[in-house]
Amino acid sequence: MNLLLLERSELSPSGEALLDDARARHLLDVLGVVPGQLVRVGLLDGPRGQAEVLHADEDTVRLRCAFDPAPPPRPRLDLVLALPRPKVLKRLWAPLAALGVRRVDLVNARRVERCYFDSHAIRPEICRPLLLEGLAQARDTWLPEVRVHRFFRKLVEDELGEGDGEKRLLADPIYPRSAIGALAALAPERRVVLAIGPEGGWDPFERDLLERHGFAGIGLGERTLRSDVAVIGLVAIVHETLRAG
Amino acid sequence: MNLLLLERSELSPSGEALLDDARARHLLDVLGVVPGQLVRVGLLDGPRGQAEVLHADEDTVRLRCAFDPAPPPRPRLDLVLALPRPKVLKRLWAPLAALGVRRVDLVNARRVERCYFDSHAIRPEICRPLLLEGLAQARDTWLPEVRVHRFFRKLVEDELGEGDGEKRLLADPIYPRSAIGALAALAPERRVVLAIGPEGGWDPFERDLLERHGFAGIGLGERTLRSDVAVIGLVAIVHETLRAG
Repeated sequence: MNLLLLERSELSPSGEALLDDARARHLLDVLGVVPGQLVRVGLLDGPRGQAEVLHADEDTVRLRCAFDPAPPPRPRLDLVLALPRPKVLKRLWAPLAALGVRRVDLVNARRVERCYFDSHAIRPEICRPLLLEGLAQARDTWLPEVRVHRFFRKLVEDELGEGDGEKRLLADPIYPRSAIGALAALAPERRVVLAIGPEGGWDPFERDLLERHGFAGIGLGERTLRSDVAVIGLVAIVHETLRAG
Repeated sequence: MNLLLLERSELSPSGEALLDDARARHLLDVLGVVPGQLVRVGLLDGPRGQAEVLHADEDTVRLRCAFDPAPPPRPRLDLVLALPRPKVLKRLWAPLAALGVRRVDLVNARRVERCYFDSHAIRPEICRPLLLEGLAQARDTWLPEVRVHRFFRKLVEDELGEGDGEKRLLADPIYPRSAIGALAALAPERRVVLAIGPEGGWDPFERDLLERHGFAGIGLGERTLRSDVAVIGLVAIVHETLRAG
């Protein structure tokens, strides 16, 4: 844990917080905090800052927090992700939050098994702690927004909007172009929406609908990658291209 | 399994192979092959090709193989990797082979725990099947060469050589530069050597020694990533930059 994340409702008006859960255990058992010590804190969806340990006993830690004037920059990337196998999705939550995504739209596609929509991996009680773990790892405070869509066409036609100000990319093995070329010299105020298909790829109808809604095709070359490796690789490449400017 | 990998010693002079192991089980149980059917095959460290199923019974499959005249291009990337925790290393073998590396030099560093060198994860009987799984996934035939070095300085000073014709990169969170910029317009005949430190990074002596041996510093920005995510992200970024050319 590189950043202790707090929610606004946990703070008193004077900026104090009393912890008695896994975060307190981590402070006590792993960091061995004592009164007077400073720890890095972050307010969920808000600024980072520092907290002084006011009191620590066997089970609880009391902190007084002081936050930066402004939150860290919000990630510029939104994902549209054909719902992966539950095992893969569980493995992806923490890395996705750590790499930084603003929103994840999980969506049905022809090559997605319907039963994946009944899985625990899309439930907030499974997904939220893993996302928080990724944020704490990366020292970010912006919790990715997660939405689940059972109808691909409705998402693309009605819910994603016109995409003004966004650069829209569609990842599929059939496209030879690299995301690095597609995003070269993107204006810093523009966000990126990246649509990643299921194992086996989007079907032709899905690619066509995405293309007609402004998504430009990109790929990762000729090697077929496991879908978690492809997702992490693609998200890392997009972020690094934006950062390299 | 997207490619059935065979070793040269398994082929008869006429290009036939008799399989009775996990590959036969996969052909029989997952693909349900019948005589006459064609499957994609690859010769380890050699060309890819096609094989015709000559005979299939309950436990064995006999194939007749025809290979392409030339092997696929060998990956242009070598890794120098501070020996990761065994759990992380086991998770990395298949993705590394799938993304494509020519050689992996596992090396000691100040922030590497000595006991990692006793781990199963560096033994060929653990590492090789996972590398083969990654190759089969990515349809590659070039098995990464794995070497283990207990002495960092000896590796850098005596064994890596002068690095003529190589572009050498050193990944550490302290460097702001991106691999995308560092590799822009690299000549296609040049290989890349990427040195990735342990969790917590290289220590100053190690960075200095690498820099004096021609390694240029790069990073992934301000976010701290879990080391498996950082390795997959960095390797994907290097490959994609080379591919985007």
